[in-house]
Amino acid sequence: MDDLYERSLARHRETRGKIEVRSRMRLESTDDLSLAYTPGVARPCEVIAEHPGAAWDLTWKGRTVAVVSDGSAVLGLGDIGPKAALPVMEGKAALFREFAGIDAVPVVLDAREPDEIVAIVRAISPTYGGINLEDISAPRCFEIEDRLQDIGIPVLHDDQHGTAIVLVAAIMNAARVLQKSLWSMSVVINGAGAAGRAIARLLTCVDDDERCVPVGKLRMCDSKGMIWPGRPGNNEQKEELAALTNSDGEKGDLRDALRGANVFVGVSRGDLLNADDIRTMGEDPIVLAMANPIPEIMPDEARAGGAKIVGTGRSDFPNQVNNVLAFPGLFRGALEARATCFTNKMKFAAIEAITQAVEEPTTNRILPEAFDRSVAVQVSKHVAEAARLSGVCHAEMAAEIRAT
Amino acid sequence: MDDLYERSLARHRETRGKIEVRSRMRLESTDDLSLAYTPGVARPCEVIAEHPGAAWDLTWKGRTVAVVSDGSAVLGLGDIGPKAALPVMEGKAALFREFAGIDAVPVVLDAREPDEIVAIVRAISPTYGGINLEDISAPRCFEIEDRLQDIGIPVLHDDQHGTAIVLVAAIMNAARVLQKSLWSMSVVINGAGAAGRAIARLLTCVDDDERCVPVGKLRMCDSKGMIWPGRPGNNEQKEELAALTNSDGEKGDLRDALRGANVFVGVSRGDLLNADDIRTMGEDPIVLAMANPIPEIMPDEARAGGAKIVGTGRSDFPNQVNNVLAFPGLFRGALEARATCFTNKMKFAAIEAITQAVEEPTTNRILPEAFDRSVAVQVSKHVAEAARLSGVCHAEMAAEIRAT
Repeated sequence: MDDLYERSLARHRETRGKIEVRSRMRLESTDDLSLAYTPGVARPCEVIAEHPGAAWDLTWKGRTVAVVSDGSAVLGLGDIGPKAALPVMEGKAALFREFAGIDAVPVVLDAREPDEIVAIVRAISPTYGGINLEDISAPRCFEIEDRLQDIGIPVLHDDQHGTAIVLVAAIMNAARVLQKSLWSMSVVINGAGAAGRAIARLLTCVDDDERCVPVGKLRMCDSKGMIWPGRPGNNEQKEELAALTNSDGEKGDLRDALRGANVFVGVSRGDLLNADDIRTMGEDPIVLAMANPIPEIMPDEARAGGAKIVGTGRSDFPNQVNNVLAFPGLFRGALEARATCFTNKMKFAAIEAITQAVEEPTTNRILPEAFDRSVAVQVSKHVAEAARLSGVCHAEMAAEIRAT
Repeated sequence: MDDLYERSLARHRETRGKIEVRSRMRLESTDDLSLAYTPGVARPCEVIAEHPGAAWDLTWKGRTVAVVSDGSAVLGLGDIGPKAALPVMEGKAALFREFAGIDAVPVVLDAREPDEIVAIVRAISPTYGGINLEDISAPRCFEIEDRLQDIGIPVLHDDQHGTAIVLVAAIMNAARVLQKSLWSMSVVINGAGAAGRAIARLLTCVDDDERCVPVGKLRMCDSKGMIWPGRPGNNEQKEELAALTNSDGEKGDLRDALRGANVFVGVSRGDLLNADDIRTMGEDPIVLAMANPIPEIMPDEARAGGAKIVGTGRSDFPNQVNNVLAFPGLFRGALEARATCFTNKMKFAAIEAITQAVEEPTTNRILPEAFDRSVAVQVSKHVAEAARLSGVCHAEMAAEIRAT
């Protein structure tokens, strides 16, 4: 790990960051200059002033995503602030370019109050076609994302939905391998942060096309054990999750929740469970242990406890749950459809595309490889189609969209 | 002009805007991904968290400028709003890339109050190494720029200072051609907007190195004629300009001001003067008529009135005053020196570099060609040196700067 860290530092020093801006127009003559800049540029400006939708065709807007963070919850590093978060946001921007051909730029914010962050993102939003919120700590991330849903371009907190989409795809393909249905399964999620909440919402949601049906039983745990309605200290989000997953009011710790369950989803912290814990689960346990770099339980240990299918966030074990399978195609599809927001239908469409990308899933291959470039293409197509079905494409551009 | 407009529109449609974002790091293997993104990226994050100055070396910050506008004063189009201003800001970003190798990105703001704009720019500033304010209407542009001087990275409203720097360089080389000194000359500026005010400030300023000495006499006019202290309706800025240029309280219209003057600077509106007006000026008149696309007086007409040297903002006449001669090198020099702001010394250094870029100025060549790529290099060197002399380089990085 030390070697990896030093090589990463050296490479960052060498390239001075990971992204750069290039001109797409020739600027070699006075004529070039008068087309790209004054006086010719006045014409595209006038056209956009009259038809705002034309900004998607005449500027970078229609192919650009801002990766916005306040640096309050960065990787395993926590609250390191905006400047120190910049390498992560640049990395994300580079992935957008490489996997989806999207022009993404980091925007790190020296701001903390949800009011401030909402006002800033709203104000800068005319510049971009979408906003990827990143590494903003819970519970502020929920309020910020919710309040930005009406700004006219899609806003998505990737730590919530990107992760949740890939994880639900993993569960669905694991169920395919074991020839089970989701509604017959009992799932335990450990961790009620950004990702945990989004996973719970997807696993309890019925899309109107019935692309996804809810799981049979779902329990959520945090560091104090199972979350139940009225549990002392519950904040608004926990109370909402309790109502969603545990209206019966079942109480107990993580081990109680795990007993007889079919799926364990860990979005919490490393080294939490052992083989004996897995032995208490129901038949053919599925273990998806996402804590990074040390998972909630190591794959060998989980298998020793009888786990049939094991996934982690790491690239050095089978079944890597990597959100690079989701976010590039999600935003690409939204941009292509000129969507104003992300709907559940669009998220389920992404899940469907990811599950279908593995033709014959096996216990060691429930997800496509992170480097499979065809996944983003498929996700993008499904998401764009779902956006049109959801009726959330910019009305002013509907005709153009139909024509393409 | 119609043809140029249509060709510009077609080219914008073809390229879908003028800039794009590229990855600078290979992303072809799992190893690449673990260096550019998780888990390796944690190391540069940690280093920046401990030494914030390292962001200039390890991210794009040290080579990046945001071109920020609210779209309130765009070219000759006026208040067309942020989305319609995007083509201009992209054009500026493309020029930054082409002339100075700077990675510039547009940020257009749906915000109007100076308080809001100041708060937003301050909040997003950790992302960038400099801020180019663009096309923000007067007098808000003055307050906004002033209040952003303490954010730790250089902030410059180019409509003020970029234009003023090139224009003062033009006056200095015109004086060289006519073998006059600035202090012997009487100058009239018509137009008290963003550019006019900045020109007046430079022409009345004594740099502590005496690189620039004030002109002998300076009068400013607006649509109501000469500006004098206590003139009814003067706002704060006009009162300041009156004190700076006309403490004697001389009154009259533009024609009164012009009588006997050596230099006319127009930053106002087209078709304002004729040959007879120029005939009232003092010996060897210098006429710099910047209104675009129609200057205050056409070059032929000015020459018919006896003007010895005529410059405009247009590329189809000699002596084009184009701020592309200033802003790329200004920001490049500031970024290289890791300056925290722009000082007068830095602005005068840019003026000096531009004047020296013309070895033997003549009446038809007082400025270098807009396409002379060597100008930005020279401006950048002069500005970086001046930043060091001004003592405004980031202290935390001073050692590294000395080492380079």
